[in-house]
Amino acid sequence: MSHPVYARIDGPIVMIGFGSIGRGTLPLIERHFDYDHAAFSVIEPGEAGQKELAARGITCHPVALTPENYREVLGKVLEPGKGFCVNLSVDTSSLDLMKFCREIGVPYIDTVVEPWAGFYFDTEDNAARTNYALRQAVRDEKAANPGGSTAVSCCGANPGMVSWFVKAGLMTLARDTGREITAPTDRAGWAGLMQSLGVKGVHIAERDTQARETPRPRGVFVNTWSVEGFIAEGFQPAELGWGTHETWFPENGYRHSEGCQSSIWLDRPGAITRVHTWCPTPGPQFGFLVTHNEAISISDYYTVGAADAPEFRPTCHYAYHPADDAVLSLHEMFGSGRQQTEHVILEVDEIVEGIDELGVLLYGHEKNALWYGSRLSNEETKALAPDQNATGLQVTSAVLAGMVWALENPNAGIVETDEMDHARCLEVQVPYLGPVEAHYTDWTPLQDRWQHFPEDIDEADPWLFRNVLAS
Amino acid sequence: MSHPVYARIDGPIVMIGFGSIGRGTLPLIERHFDYDHAAFSVIEPGEAGQKELAARGITCHPVALTPENYREVLGKVLEPGKGFCVNLSVDTSSLDLMKFCREIGVPYIDTVVEPWAGFYFDTEDNAARTNYALRQAVRDEKAANPGGSTAVSCCGANPGMVSWFVKAGLMTLARDTGREITAPTDRAGWAGLMQSLGVKGVHIAERDTQARETPRPRGVFVNTWSVEGFIAEGFQPAELGWGTHETWFPENGYRHSEGCQSSIWLDRPGAITRVHTWCPTPGPQFGFLVTHNEAISISDYYTVGAADAPEFRPTCHYAYHPADDAVLSLHEMFGSGRQQTEHVILEVDEIVEGIDELGVLLYGHEKNALWYGSRLSNEETKALAPDQNATGLQVTSAVLAGMVWALENPNAGIVETDEMDHARCLEVQVPYLGPVEAHYTDWTPLQDRWQHFPEDIDEADPWLFRNVLAS
Ligand SMILES: NC(=O)c1ccc[n+]([C@@H]2O[C@H](COP(=O)([O-])OP(=O)(O)OC[C@H]3O[C@@H](n4cnc5c(N)ncnc54)[C@H](O)[C@@H]3O)[C@@H](O)[C@H]2O)c1
Ligand SMILES: NC(=O)c1ccc[n+]([C@@H]2O[C@H](COP(=O)([O-])OP(=O)(O)OC[C@H]3O[C@@H](n4cnc5c(N)ncnc54)[C@H](O)[C@@H]3O)[C@@H](O)[C@H]2O)c1
Repeated sequence: MSHPVYARIDGPIVMIGFGSIGRGTLPLIERHFDYDHAAFSVIEPGEAGQKELAARGITCHPVALTPENYREVLGKVLEPGKGFCVNLSVDTSSLDLMKFCREIGVPYIDTVVEPWAGFYFDTEDNAARTNYALRQAVRDEKAANPGGSTAVSCCGANPGMVSWFVKAGLMTLARDTGREITAPTDRAGWAGLMQSLGVKGVHIAERDTQARETPRPRGVFVNTWSVEGFIAEGFQPAELGWGTHETWFPENGYRHSEGCQSSIWLDRPGAITRVHTWCPTPGPQFGFLVTHNEAISISDYYTVGAADAPEFRPTCHYAYHPADDAVLSLHEMFGSGRQQTEHVILEVDEIVEGIDELGVLLYGHEKNALWYGSRLSNEETKALAPDQNATGLQVTSAVLAGMVWALENPNAGIVETDEMDHARCLEVQVPYLGPVEAHYTDWTPLQDRWQHFPEDIDEADPWLFRNVLAS
Repeated sequence: MSHPVYARIDGPIVMIGFGSIGRGTLPLIERHFDYDHAAFSVIEPGEAGQKELAARGITCHPVALTPENYREVLGKVLEPGKGFCVNLSVDTSSLDLMKFCREIGVPYIDTVVEPWAGFYFDTEDNAARTNYALRQAVRDEKAANPGGSTAVSCCGANPGMVSWFVKAGLMTLARDTGREITAPTDRAGWAGLMQSLGVKGVHIAERDTQARETPRPRGVFVNTWSVEGFIAEGFQPAELGWGTHETWFPENGYRHSEGCQSSIWLDRPGAITRVHTWCPTPGPQFGFLVTHNEAISISDYYTVGAADAPEFRPTCHYAYHPADDAVLSLHEMFGSGRQQTEHVILEVDEIVEGIDELGVLLYGHEKNALWYGSRLSNEETKALAPDQNATGLQVTSAVLAGMVWALENPNAGIVETDEMDHARCLEVQVPYLGPVEAHYTDWTPLQDRWQHFPEDIDEADPWLFRNVLAS
């Protein structure tokens, strides 16, 4: 595998957070950018990360960013108009960091709209604890300060890469249904394409089968990426983009009255809310309706018509079957009513089998449903890049692609991945994604229901969310 | 460990079924009874069992019992007035086999009221698919034909042993709350004791932590005992004995109008219905509300007053946290809407850690809650008896105790374990149970609820089923 160098970066490159994603992103930055290695540093408050950085001879600023210190800390380590700020941390405000970087003209990227520490569990009002609220604040900033220095918001695997898969999937579906079209070049074009193809909605359909041989120890939350991140989002209310084909409204559902209004939230934790979904490897399976930025951004991006009275909008949500050890960790956490305090992220070398199968299931159209995504195995990951498992590489390679795009488009302002050139980004990312495949299926959420028991379903349209939501 | 020989058995001993429980029961029969080994035989239709029996030089009748052939097959291999019929099979009617054995005066024991093949999935009416219906048929037979040759119904770990634990637990609680009492000698006495102690209900609270190192393969149902049995009961409606302290009634709940009326059923599969419960090792945890005979028999046995208008009745139900691999198997089965066709029962030698912690949680009294049960490890099991894991030994040692009791009480008619001498039975069984312990806890189902989300609870009484049922 040859490693193209995509750009020269002058000035300080500052990575914030050296957790599972930071560690995995570093080797990709080393490979694909030309920069002065002495100008690379990491802000990392954790001891484990600090030690590893010291061992590698990489400058580390051993400090936790806070609302009080972030301007000072970043002001010292960044240089106006140069370098890059790569935010891969938890407990920092993506919005504040992004605003500061744009103020001083430093390209910025993150993988999630993260809030300052405390937000997830101390906020009382559930509407305020949604990703809708977090994202809308970034959209409002974009609207208030359009253009300017590029800041890429939410550019990981999902949110991130999956938005590029939606576009690639739409093009595949257009081709396979005999439409002769060229790729749209703006939002209206893409939304119109989705509408004209008859797509009713999108599951971000993921099955992670990575496993190690040690049985999960009791009292330990085991995951393939940030446990802290997963617990936090798992306890946020379930959220989904709410499509125009829906004829029913969940009893515990709430709409928003301000902003893009593309999504609703349920008064129930996402990580205990099950949906029926489909992935190539398992076929039909339960996924958890964990809230994610892309559920809101995709349903917003593909809206045709007014925000509060759209002509077309897709339903969109995450349907996540995490690694089996994480399924057990959730079962333990919700069952005990207590968060585990010991956290483990499965390391690439202890994983003995499995893939992270992450794609988009475009459903409701004339070919029923199309899954388009990456089926990257841990084994293949080892050959592709060091210091990460399959889950990590799907995220870090999206960060790489986002950085390349940002350097090629330095004055694009605040952007989400839906708003970027999906073809260019996938061109950079795909070498790291293992098999990227399109699979049609005739499965619908009306199939394979339980025998003998009544369920609240509506057979008029198999793809209603009412049928997707598990009893 | 010395192995007392409890009785001489003359005539043919016929075991029906040589699955995980049959294999584990055999060495206990060999140890604890004096009999002519040539007179021991097994009815086993499965090839694996047949081969193992052949290798051990044990006579095997390679046939599946059916409604058409059972009288003929059993008639040939049993001898009137002698021997023993030990039914440890699936897909055979416990009621029919028991009736036939009583007709010819052969002692009989089983571990479940099993129906003929097809019943569990072909019966349309959910009320008819309940364990209530299955048990009531046995109770009706007992009422119609009282006394006679002893047939012990449902004498495994649970149903079975746990009924003896309820009595031992009540005596422990009586002692620890300063009552000076001797053990009651009849049903009315026991029911009165439970009522006077202020017990509101009983969870059969189990946590199985046995695990092997191989990650659970996709598409395989892994369990520590009969997979077929677990799937069948898991797809029956959830059922529970319905106590007089309950102030609310589940929306999807149904009562029975005939019979003992001690229990209700929910129009939802038990193995996907979660309850909040407690065991010593994990503390608070989710259990599954899988229907079990003991939920109905215990709430019936401890009823004070009329069946349809009781003065006192405890709520009683199973709250089962099976082995982690079984939790994952259930998640896969309900998520795909398909039963796995490959079944694995974890073997004692591949299990690398874990215990089966199985007891009764007596709750609602002045000391809040008392868990009384067996905490048997797989490791200890290896030293106690061959050919079984911890789960198996808790069942097979109950079968042993039940056989001893039946031989000592040959004309007791049809009995459930609630109706047997718990002290004598535990005397026989306890050497095989590892630590048998009493644990008080101040946990209630109102503790450790989710932050931030509304739940349908009633704080007036922490022990209402409404609070136990998970959202
Ligand atoms: N979009 C995606 O696909 C995707 C996927 C995985 C992770 N993520 C996100 O990426 C982020 C990192 O994930 P991860 O798996 O590496 O998490 P991790 O928990 O392994 O690492 C997080 C790092 O942030 C550091 N940190 C904590 N508080 C900090 C502070 N105040 N200032 C600076 N650093 C701080 C921690 O010490 C840790 O090293 C998370 O926000 C996660 O949600 C996104
Ligand atoms: N009460 C308890 O605590 C408890 C615990 C475990 C199992 N059980 C019950 O014990 C029984 C056996 O459990 P297991 O784990 O050994 O199950 P298993 O599935 O391992 O074995 C069942 C055996 O029954 C045989 N069988 C199937 N159909 C038959 C037929 N028509 N005639 C004769 N034999 C037939 C099978 O070939 C198999 O060997 C099940 O009914 C189970 O529900 C009760």
